[in-house]
Amino acid sequence: MVNQTFGDIDKLAVNTIRCLSIDMVQKANSGHPGAPMGCAPMSHVLFTRHFKANPTDSNWLARDRFVLSNGHASALQYSIYHLLGYNISMQDLKDFRQYKSKTPGHPEVGMTEGVEVTTGPLGQGISNAVGLAIAEAHLAKTFNRGDYKIFDNYTYVICGDGCLEEGINYEAASLAGHYKLGKLIVLYDANGIQIDGDVEIAFTENVCKRFEAQGWHVQEVADGNNDLEAISKAIEAAKAETTKPSLIRINTTIGYGSQNQGTEKVHGAPLGNADVAFSKKSLGFNPEEFFVVPEEVQKLYNDICQSGMDAQKEWTRMYEKYSEEYPELAAEIERRKQNKLKEGWEEKLPRFTANDAGAATRKLSHDVLNIVCNELPEIVGGSADLSGSNLTQWKGSVDFQADASGLGSYDGRYFHFGVREHVMAAIMNGIHAYRFGFIPFGSTFLNFINYASGAVRLSALSKHQVLYIMTHDSIGLGEDGPTHQPVEIIPNLRAYPNLFVMRPADGNEVSGCYMKAIKSRTTPTVLCLTRQGVPQLEGSSIEKTLKGGYILSEPETTPKVILVGTGSEVSLCVESAKILNNEGIATRVVSLPCWEIFDEQSEEYRESVFPKNIPVLSVEAASTFGWSKYATASCGIDDFGVSAPASQVYKHFGLVPEVVVEKAKKLL
Amino acid sequence: MVNQTFGDIDKLAVNTIRCLSIDMVQKANSGHPGAPMGCAPMSHVLFTRHFKANPTDSNWLARDRFVLSNGHASALQYSIYHLLGYNISMQDLKDFRQYKSKTPGHPEVGMTEGVEVTTGPLGQGISNAVGLAIAEAHLAKTFNRGDYKIFDNYTYVICGDGCLEEGINYEAASLAGHYKLGKLIVLYDANGIQIDGDVEIAFTENVCKRFEAQGWHVQEVADGNNDLEAISKAIEAAKAETTKPSLIRINTTIGYGSQNQGTEKVHGAPLGNADVAFSKKSLGFNPEEFFVVPEEVQKLYNDICQSGMDAQKEWTRMYEKYSEEYPELAAEIERRKQNKLKEGWEEKLPRFTANDAGAATRKLSHDVLNIVCNELPEIVGGSADLSGSNLTQWKGSVDFQADASGLGSYDGRYFHFGVREHVMAAIMNGIHAYRFGFIPFGSTFLNFINYASGAVRLSALSKHQVLYIMTHDSIGLGEDGPTHQPVEIIPNLRAYPNLFVMRPADGNEVSGCYMKAIKSRTTPTVLCLTRQGVPQLEGSSIEKTLKGGYILSEPETTPKVILVGTGSEVSLCVESAKILNNEGIATRVVSLPCWEIFDEQSEEYRESVFPKNIPVLSVEAASTFGWSKYATASCGIDDFGVSAPASQVYKHFGLVPEVVVEKAKKLL
Repeated sequence: MVNQTFGDIDKLAVNTIRCLSIDMVQKANSGHPGAPMGCAPMSHVLFTRHFKANPTDSNWLARDRFVLSNGHASALQYSIYHLLGYNISMQDLKDFRQYKSKTPGHPEVGMTEGVEVTTGPLGQGISNAVGLAIAEAHLAKTFNRGDYKIFDNYTYVICGDGCLEEGINYEAASLAGHYKLGKLIVLYDANGIQIDGDVEIAFTENVCKRFEAQGWHVQEVADGNNDLEAISKAIEAAKAETTKPSLIRINTTIGYGSQNQGTEKVHGAPLGNADVAFSKKSLGFNPEEFFVVPEEVQKLYNDICQSGMDAQKEWTRMYEKYSEEYPELAAEIERRKQNKLKEGWEEKLPRFTANDAGAATRKLSHDVLNIVCNELPEIVGGSADLSGSNLTQWKGSVDFQADASGLGSYDGRYFHFGVREHVMAAIMNGIHAYRFGFIPFGSTFLNFINYASGAVRLSALSKHQVLYIMTHDSIGLGEDGPTHQPVEIIPNLRAYPNLFVMRPADGNEVSGCYMKAIKSRTTPTVLCLTRQGVPQLEGSSIEKTLKGGYILSEPETTPKVILVGTGSEVSLCVESAKILNNEGIATRVVSLPCWEIFDEQSEEYRESVFPKNIPVLSVEAASTFGWSKYATASCGIDDFGVSAPASQVYKHFGLVPEVVVEKAKKLL
Repeated sequence: MVNQTFGDIDKLAVNTIRCLSIDMVQKANSGHPGAPMGCAPMSHVLFTRHFKANPTDSNWLARDRFVLSNGHASALQYSIYHLLGYNISMQDLKDFRQYKSKTPGHPEVGMTEGVEVTTGPLGQGISNAVGLAIAEAHLAKTFNRGDYKIFDNYTYVICGDGCLEEGINYEAASLAGHYKLGKLIVLYDANGIQIDGDVEIAFTENVCKRFEAQGWHVQEVADGNNDLEAISKAIEAAKAETTKPSLIRINTTIGYGSQNQGTEKVHGAPLGNADVAFSKKSLGFNPEEFFVVPEEVQKLYNDICQSGMDAQKEWTRMYEKYSEEYPELAAEIERRKQNKLKEGWEEKLPRFTANDAGAATRKLSHDVLNIVCNELPEIVGGSADLSGSNLTQWKGSVDFQADASGLGSYDGRYFHFGVREHVMAAIMNGIHAYRFGFIPFGSTFLNFINYASGAVRLSALSKHQVLYIMTHDSIGLGEDGPTHQPVEIIPNLRAYPNLFVMRPADGNEVSGCYMKAIKSRTTPTVLCLTRQGVPQLEGSSIEKTLKGGYILSEPETTPKVILVGTGSEVSLCVESAKILNNEGIATRVVSLPCWEIFDEQSEEYRESVFPKNIPVLSVEAASTFGWSKYATASCGIDDFGVSAPASQVYKHFGLVPEVVVEKAKKLL
């Protein structure tokens, strides 16, 4: 067992972490030494005295979660993980920030064991942590029985001033306080410095009082450089507080021990050889030696690792007994842990014929959610205060709310995120990052996904399977006008790597899009859905939708022109093609609900849809940017929208059969 | 003079506003009646007892500024502006939300007199207001002399819970408190309802305490439905508080007077005929009559209008005397008011030859800023805590800081925005919206412009001439890795209407881009600048840059292939073309710093650059999305980046001469 008091060995360990971080940054000739040096004490205390983890099995379900929200301090995370026994060798530390190393510039999930979420863009980590804490609260309430605390972990965050200035962190803090996430503990590295200088030049709010106003339990540690015991006691108190998330403000010195400690100079560049030597000396290390871990420090960390292994063994014994007593729950845990979907859910997806009544695709989406959310309990989600417009609240859903609130329960799966699009997305990422097969979704008007772009990017980069259910996807929303009508948003999204942008045209395509989105376990999806009604189309099917694009209707003779549309404009293509075909101009209609999936098909297939010699006119109620990839010419919107009833807005932008027909004729 | 006490006539006026708003929404069969009905009392008090404006001259420099941050309450703004005598007729009210009307769904600057900023996307308005208040503080300090208070206006905001949940509002509040913007006054419509229901389901933070923690003066009005005097006294106290921005929490009932008052049902849809009648009756109006303004109410508002006209006259007399005493200052005011740039500044822009030393384009940008910021005092700007990296702090710049802070002065023009990209952009929009010829800029790493997307969209939509100086514009930033390397960002931005996306290749192009950006008075610009050095190119010039794209180098014989690049990849094109030309493959190099400007050139010019029969290979260290518009094939990055030294990352993605040459050969 590790001693719960602190002594010289702890001081040595802290300075070991500092010196490793210094050496990493210096060798890479790039990186951030200041934050690791300042945060070494709190990290050492956290990981040696409180953190529950088994470094030899970083997938242990019951592990505490750690998020380094100030991801630029990555050298700290890597060096302490190396000491703890994660699969990070001394050579990996030496390869910091090098090509294909396990130790990239900022922590990236999937690159390094023990890294739960990708951080670096400020404010994201602390927001992901709210998602991780939500996942824990939800699973504990759903699966724990009696004394079997299968899910029972804390979520720890280290963050700096930068994270606490970003808008997203306030949204995160507000929601975490609202949800009373008592097992979320944030260690705030208050070093008084940001890149431009003293935080006093830009950030003078009373952070502690702000967090209190947001429903947090707040403590302060006066000397975070040396008072390890105070840090430990504060963490202990935070753990004991079960109804509020905790912020511990820990006053530190950036670059502690270096010549320029306490200034922005030590933030974002190597210390340089002279200051490396100076720092080593001041920290009691030999300035001539690099990448040094004193034996007794490694021994201490080995003990921590051992106690983590023991803890997992103990938990596994409990889990085995639980599995005997609750075999169905255990089977469900196993299923979800392995990312397996239940069988048979796809068969329940609705299918339509052209005789079925049309509907808005948001309404058709609602019908699908009513099915899949009841089939797949790993789907959790909600809306940024537009539930009634997004139609995302499925039949029988229970609100996720603090049990004590009387408004719902932690085993609820529907979220009222409030008007907080950015943290909604980051929370989705965080829930997915719990690595328990969750498929989180969030919803708002398509136009406002741009409030969440910072987090959408991380969904794609970190391969989080999350669903953005975005309604009111065009000028078709009408009177709300240009502030609410997306125009550039659809091409914006299509430019992301690893993101499916889907714009289904009818019921079959909505079902097909959900099928693909739910089965794509490493790619996020944006579903763009109409406010207004669309007809059920002749020629659509779930199976064709799964190809991303397909021939919806074919003229009797070889086509002379192709009309390609997405979503609500596919029926406009159909209507226009009818006119053209009647006039003797053989016209094919292609529906292209998802470019990214279409592009994954064989060249042969793609050329069968768009043969090289036939001109193509694209029709989409969005910016035409990007369509030149498939189309010879485009009908679209290369300006912002206007406020008027939808039909008039469509007419204003020439998205009516007469104009489409005319443009198509010009291509002949 | 208007009576400073409140009586029946005021109650009647309040209900007139409510009924007008009800009728507008009902006639449009679309819109939001609840907020106007709840906010009518505070609006009436504000505009009849406090607001300084001349409705017959909405351009009066000294007017108070009003921002309806909950823009969905637009019917409120239009109806009260109609009463006040702005150029909004009763017919305009009847045309609410109709095609080409002056009364669009959400307030749009340029569409309606008296609308200072476009609102609707929540949180933007309150953030723009911080910019408006900054502009006032800056101009007052810069131009006022002795008793001549030429600039001396308040900025008033009405906002609801929605605005106060968005991340951007916290950033705005934090910075407004920091800057001690005593003349910013926010009326918070606390009606306890959001779209999903009671705010208690999602928003339980203590808003008043939160604002106090952020350095605000906070008051509360218990009964905002009826207690007009209390509202007025609170506004009076807020005006008297000069060192802190003010929040007045005004408790109201959404849809006050209607059947479903106090519920989310009255938020976003017409009341319906039955409830319109019910509401009219409960508000003391004839349910059979529509769009009614009682004579005595109009009389009261006419008096307000008259007193506004008188106030402007008085101010004009003062301004005339000031002009005599301070002719130079007055001349400068006139120049800036008329959006005129000083003459001769362009000639000072640096020009380069290929023999000059290369440099990072961020460094070349710094050199330009050192010139233009000293030439043009209307340029104000700063960085979201990356001043030293963005290189935006020009020589001799003074920090904009509260005079009392000792850190700078209100007449300073450099902003340390903190790590707050979103509000930085919204503040830029707000400063520009002061309509005094300001050219605000903001800066961060290009990748993090996506934190600000919500406000960037409004820069473009509202035609705000603002400059986004975005550095570290590609994988060229190297070790910081994929979280910091923009890939999709450049095409993202290119999809916006009315936004120049510029990626200069060398010194001449940097100068040319700034020239174009500064002269484009209704279009925002994003400057994408390198972290790494680039050579000065043979064949570049400021004048060619002004065409958006041009032939940089031409082979001796008719070109067989064209290499087109932007920014740092233009020199890669040059290098590759050299190899190709040496191998006998005549290769043209085109530099395309700004697609939007290039697309504005004549078809003839564009075809002279890209003749139809010559294949084009694009080379850009970004997603290739969109390049099919010009290029036959593309070298780019259709994945996220990697953490490694820049040269290795370039190699990883095939952005090296060998690969470019190989791809170019395939096009022959």
